[in-house]
Amino acid sequence: MSLENISCQKSFGGWHKRYRHRSASLNCDMVFAVYLPPQAEQGEKLPVLYWLSGLTCTDENFMQKAGAHRLAAELGLIIVAPDTSPRGPGVPDDPDAAYDFGLGAGFYLNATQEPWAQHYRMHDYVVDELPALIEANFPASDKRGISGHSMGGHGALVCALKNPGRYQSLSAFAPIGNPADCPWGEKAFSNYLGEDRSRWREWDACALIATAQEKLPILVDQGDRDDFMADQLKPDALEAAARAAQHPLTLRIQPGYDHSYYFIASFIDDHLHHHAQALKG
Amino acid sequence: MSLENISCQKSFGGWHKRYRHRSASLNCDMVFAVYLPPQAEQGEKLPVLYWLSGLTCTDENFMQKAGAHRLAAELGLIIVAPDTSPRGPGVPDDPDAAYDFGLGAGFYLNATQEPWAQHYRMHDYVVDELPALIEANFPASDKRGISGHSMGGHGALVCALKNPGRYQSLSAFAPIGNPADCPWGEKAFSNYLGEDRSRWREWDACALIATAQEKLPILVDQGDRDDFMADQLKPDALEAAARAAQHPLTLRIQPGYDHSYYFIASFIDDHLHHHAQALKG
Repeated sequence: MSLENISCQKSFGGWHKRYRHRSASLNCDMVFAVYLPPQAEQGEKLPVLYWLSGLTCTDENFMQKAGAHRLAAELGLIIVAPDTSPRGPGVPDDPDAAYDFGLGAGFYLNATQEPWAQHYRMHDYVVDELPALIEANFPASDKRGISGHSMGGHGALVCALKNPGRYQSLSAFAPIGNPADCPWGEKAFSNYLGEDRSRWREWDACALIATAQEKLPILVDQGDRDDFMADQLKPDALEAAARAAQHPLTLRIQPGYDHSYYFIASFIDDHLHHHAQALKG
Repeated sequence: MSLENISCQKSFGGWHKRYRHRSASLNCDMVFAVYLPPQAEQGEKLPVLYWLSGLTCTDENFMQKAGAHRLAAELGLIIVAPDTSPRGPGVPDDPDAAYDFGLGAGFYLNATQEPWAQHYRMHDYVVDELPALIEANFPASDKRGISGHSMGGHGALVCALKNPGRYQSLSAFAPIGNPADCPWGEKAFSNYLGEDRSRWREWDACALIATAQEKLPILVDQGDRDDFMADQLKPDALEAAARAAQHPLTLRIQPGYDHSYYFIASFIDDHLHHHAQALKG
């Protein structure tokens, strides 16, 4: 598996690097970004936080806007940011090129319906292929945390809840908490997975949390001026599911904050500490 | 002078807001951004740091990518980020729409040549019109700092050096230090100011520093892997001019850093402390 380095920028004493590679899971070329803190040059293997971005994003949004490098450099955390969908020639997009489906909107699942199933397998990419690549090519240990925003918050919850033992820490910003029951999720799931709603449950955090064997504590921040909160994100549904299953969830409703990266930047340090504590613990 | 608020986002307990207004200096509508730290709601007047961005930027780049809100919120600093040129219908652009002249490239000077002189008066806008607007409409004191990046670093140096007493603190990231003698500056100055190079001296930091009455200490950071350093930025020329004039300049060459916002984010805290120390006394 060869990695082509496409950029390299010093940041807080460490390095922000972007790579292109052929993805076997996704059957296309992919770009991801990695932040290597200064400790990565000292020979030690470091824990990795995987960050999953939201609709329309690429590997770049979080790295440029979250302000996470400062504390990651202090804590000795590697951060990996994949793209949000397969890309490139031959990868089908929403026929209307809508922002909420297709390119930039892979929903971190494995599609079963054509024409999506050939490329849209972001779950396998994020959970298996990418960590294998990271752990083989960088000074990364097998301690893994996962977090994300909006569609990526959904992705983080589902990746961790479906794969007990794979991650040691979990958090999310304004996640789509109950995608089987919101417009974004219904559009994506009906296309990627088909109309049989019983098949949607294995990609819905509320359904997964009900039967999760592993009780990995979850930190969630949600702004109360987030325009998507009531209709798309449904933190109440996630909270109710966690309460019913006695799953440890810290849901913080942050007054005045919206859905933007200003919100993420304001609380990213708390999330990095949450992950570092579990990963370095 | 009426301000139209076009967005409002909570960030680190304060607010990032964008405004549109009619600019008398520039003879067009302009947008600027302001970061109001939490202390702005406590009735106290706060010092203001003016940030001038580089080529191709708008008011958004610094606010989104510099990671400055965190410490500004702690220090109680207002940050104001104007656009980098006049904009809109009727504002002439480079005939080739090049990135380094015209729209997005006002060079923070007052043009004397047509067709530029009607709109390209960013110096008057930044030094007089914008602070008057800020001090009338926000809880802003008359303590002013100024900083910027690349073309905006040139702007910050020139604004402060030309207007003794107007600013109490000054810094720059990778400034165009000697624009009268580099390709970016020569293109801009010959168009905006005409071919008579003697007229260029009043917009060149190296020339201005030689005769500056006020010895405002300057902090400059410059990455040594910045592709523009040798041909366009010329920190050596700035350093030599400061030394000859016994002007206090702290020039820090940062090993490994490039010209990007990752570089700015890595050192913005030092600049905010530099300004806060002078502005808050």
